[in-house]
Amino acid sequence: MMFLNITLHRQNNITTGKIYKQVIDRERHGDYLGKTVQVVPHITDAIQEWIEKVAQKPISETGKTPEVCIIELGGIVGDIESMAFIEAFRQFQFRVKRENFCVAHVSLIPQPRTTGEHKTKPTQSLVCELRELGLSPDIIVCRSEKPIGQSVKEMISNFCHVAPQQFISIPDLESVYEVPVFMENHGMAEYLSHRLHLGITPLAPMRKYMKPWICLGEKMRHLKYEVMVAIVGKYTRLEDSYTSITKALHHAGNKIG
Amino acid sequence: MMFLNITLHRQNNITTGKIYKQVIDRERHGDYLGKTVQVVPHITDAIQEWIEKVAQKPISETGKTPEVCIIELGGIVGDIESMAFIEAFRQFQFRVKRENFCVAHVSLIPQPRTTGEHKTKPTQSLVCELRELGLSPDIIVCRSEKPIGQSVKEMISNFCHVAPQQFISIPDLESVYEVPVFMENHGMAEYLSHRLHLGITPLAPMRKYMKPWICLGEKMRHLKYEVMVAIVGKYTRLEDSYTSITKALHHAGNKIG
Amino acid sequence: MMFLNITLHRQNNITTGKIYKQVIDRERHGDYLGKTVQVVPHITDAIQEWIEKVAQKPISETGKTPEVCIIELGGIVGDIESMAFIEAFRQFQFRVKRENFCVAHVSLIPQPRTTGEHKTKPTQSLVCELRELGLSPDIIVCRSEKPIGQSVKEMISNFCHVAPQQFISIPDLESVYEVPVFMENHGMAEYLSHRLHLGITPLAPMRKYMKPWICLGEKMRHLKYEVMVAIVGKYTRLEDSYTSITKALHHAGNKIG
Amino acid sequence: MMFLNITLHRQNNITTGKIYKQVIDRERHGDYLGKTVQVVPHITDAIQEWIEKVAQKPISETGKTPEVCIIELGGIVGDIESMAFIEAFRQFQFRVKRENFCVAHVSLIPQPRTTGEHKTKPTQSLVCELRELGLSPDIIVCRSEKPIGQSVKEMISNFCHVAPQQFISIPDLESVYEVPVFMENHGMAEYLSHRLHLGITPLAPMRKYMKPWICLGEKMRHLKYEVMVAIVGKYTRLEDSYTSITKALHHAGNKIG
Repeated sequence: MMFLNITLHRQNNITTGKIYKQVIDRERHGDYLGKTVQVVPHITDAIQEWIEKVAQKPISETGKTPEVCIIELGGIVGDIESMAFIEAFRQFQFRVKRENFCVAHVSLIPQPRTTGEHKTKPTQSLVCELRELGLSPDIIVCRSEKPIGQSVKEMISNFCHVAPQQFISIPDLESVYEVPVFMENHGMAEYLSHRLHLGITPLAPMRKYMKPWICLGEKMRHLKYEVMVAIVGKYTRLEDSYTSITKALHHAGNKIG
Repeated sequence: MMFLNITLHRQNNITTGKIYKQVIDRERHGDYLGKTVQVVPHITDAIQEWIEKVAQKPISETGKTPEVCIIELGGIVGDIESMAFIEAFRQFQFRVKRENFCVAHVSLIPQPRTTGEHKTKPTQSLVCELRELGLSPDIIVCRSEKPIGQSVKEMISNFCHVAPQQFISIPDLESVYEVPVFMENHGMAEYLSHRLHLGITPLAPMRKYMKPWICLGEKMRHLKYEVMVAIVGKYTRLEDSYTSITKALHHAGNKIG
Repeated sequence: MMFLNITLHRQNNITTGKIYKQVIDRERHGDYLGKTVQVVPHITDAIQEWIEKVAQKPISETGKTPEVCIIELGGIVGDIESMAFIEAFRQFQFRVKRENFCVAHVSLIPQPRTTGEHKTKPTQSLVCELRELGLSPDIIVCRSEKPIGQSVKEMISNFCHVAPQQFISIPDLESVYEVPVFMENHGMAEYLSHRLHLGITPLAPMRKYMKPWICLGEKMRHLKYEVMVAIVGKYTRLEDSYTSITKALHHAGNKIG
Repeated sequence: MMFLNITLHRQNNITTGKIYKQVIDRERHGDYLGKTVQVVPHITDAIQEWIEKVAQKPISETGKTPEVCIIELGGIVGDIESMAFIEAFRQFQFRVKRENFCVAHVSLIPQPRTTGEHKTKPTQSLVCELRELGLSPDIIVCRSEKPIGQSVKEMISNFCHVAPQQFISIPDLESVYEVPVFMENHGMAEYLSHRLHLGITPLAPMRKYMKPWICLGEKMRHLKYEVMVAIVGKYTRLEDSYTSITKALHHAGNKIG
């Protein structure tokens, strides 16, 4: 990411396929002493090892070991796809202790136009399901078109067991680049600093660090030109296949204005 | 309802409170021979009895016993509120046999504006939860702002175990009075006639029966005047308290145009 | 209980029926200002109020307010019967803060004779279900015929998120009167004193307090006579109806030897 | 199996490891056209293909295609391990139609010695969980030490939605070789013949087919000698590693008596 100035490696992207490949290769190699390969403990152990290794890897020019590793677990709670990862994180949180692990759950709050009410039930069920699987969200991020009212906030806070500072409602903003500033304004940096014992002195230095994000958001609000770019490829029907190319074009465009 | 021309009685509205009151009164009366009142079987039996009694009651001037009883179970699957009712219906379906009981699940398909994708996961989880509780939907009614595309339909049909004719997507229409016509156009009457052995000869007579609904929908699209009506009451902050009055005013207004 | 020397009142026994009766009476009285009676919040609030009132009531001759109130929630997690109570306790734990609320889950560990293995899966699912409903057990009490081995303990501890001191395996003992001594020997008193900030100085005074239980256990191991007692009643086919009478006879018998 | 006189191949044993290996190899080969490997649909499709291929393979000297394929899905409902398989079977049942797929759920009914009651709750929750995942058991096999009474049967039948002929209680028998005879005596063959449209004429020929099982059971009840056999191996601490050897020794022993 341009303002994070960090370089991510191939290993930073863990997929079910990569993990299983590694585990199956190890089994061939006799590493599991004749035991049948199982999701628990073989796959879940492999996930934890992978994360620990990746988290130690320097990602900036300074060559320093990073202090925090952010893991995005895609998919939806309850999908078979994410089961092994959730179980791995469940175990991980006990190994590394509470002050070294923090779960944020991002959830959609739909608002059907006919009634205009924010529907919180899907979020409640997903948080219950997550808790059943052994992860209790420390932060609940609610995505919605319009800001969420106080009574809806209280209902979520009450049902999902989170204090007000652990809950953030992010409505649709002008551009995605305004999200970091919005989160910082709503106290996320302070909460995380406290929760993970990061010792960040708040406000002043933080503000400085947020500067480029603020500028980028501003710039996006005032883009001047529109250009059309054609992409030729084999898998163009799969929107995600060339994401890195389209995103690169977006970013280049933003730079120029 | 004006076009249904039916008269509903007090007993047509079953509430948790009414059911518990009846059961507690019976227990006082010694009807349960010293046993402690329990949700299963006392409350669930009381719900089934109530429904069977109400379903037999004539609701039109002809004095005939109705052929079908529609029960709207409010709330959301998984709510404590609806648990006893769902369990009562689970038992009921076995007592009355498959051809006399049919479950329709109405579900919201949100479509967050940022991605524009229809999200089916909440519907899938609710149907799974319902199935876990012992009710398998025969009909899935998906509510959404815009019509649902083919791939989304297939995903729901596949995950929720329903054939295409058991699935209906109802997008926002001009007015709520167009919904019956929309459903009939999409084959619901035929499906239900077949599923519940009702022996309705399709199309011709059905069409005639739908006429008033079509007219009402038309009328609503072309309302001419706007009036303001003040309501004075004790519980005006609770929107639902005077629903019957506001609805009556709406209907009266529609009549006049 | 004879060695607890406490007197319990009618209100110490809360049933679904009593709670609903109270709530329905209040509703008749207009206490809910026209709102429909609902499980949440009306029933759950009533349960919490009841418990708070009962917990303050002196139960010994000293007339002092009790320091701890033990609530036995019967039935099985996931039963409709206990849903409203579990939800009430979920809310209660947040109102009274962590140091004033502690959940113990008692679970059966079956050991089918053919394989001789202790089966932990039912316990794991119940704890997951409890966690989904918003209660996380602080203590897991495992009941089994024979003592549970180390590997089984670790599996439960690992899957149910409890440290070794929060887990106690109680195998079948000579008599039920040996259970309190067994639990104290396994550190339950110390854990609870710490968990609920009770400030009990351990060992010495505790031991003295346990004396009568130890004696009673001893006595039960050496009962000398056997007598047959006939009971005449209306509901004799329901084993539970006259429990207080049969228990009283047992206790009287024990006293005599 | 000696009395089945069938020969199973390597492919008859499907493991998570084998399936993933196949899928990962295909992905390397470009078979998925750039898509990321996912549990659904890649793994679940691979499981279904594998089963269909194996089910067609002759297993007897006659070289005929088998009529029925029995799949034992190990593990416990709800385990991450079995998730992909359950989802594969959920899809499979729709592809092959109802008369070609039948689910039997084998469940333990514990009977703690202190109360002597059969506990049905674990079975109920597992069946609910299975139903939630989209498989509804056609047959419920309850394992227990002693035979299960009528009231317990009715409770299971009622909660698990199965008719009496779909339910079989198998208590501990003299030896495992008496189980097939016991099941046939309790009408399983007839039920399956009807359920899967097998057209087996009952009783007479069936009885003849059961003869060897009856003899084997008899023989096991009257074994005469006891011998001790030492096994030397690398993984002797894992009981399962040499199961085929120990079983072979058992069978050889039985033959001799």
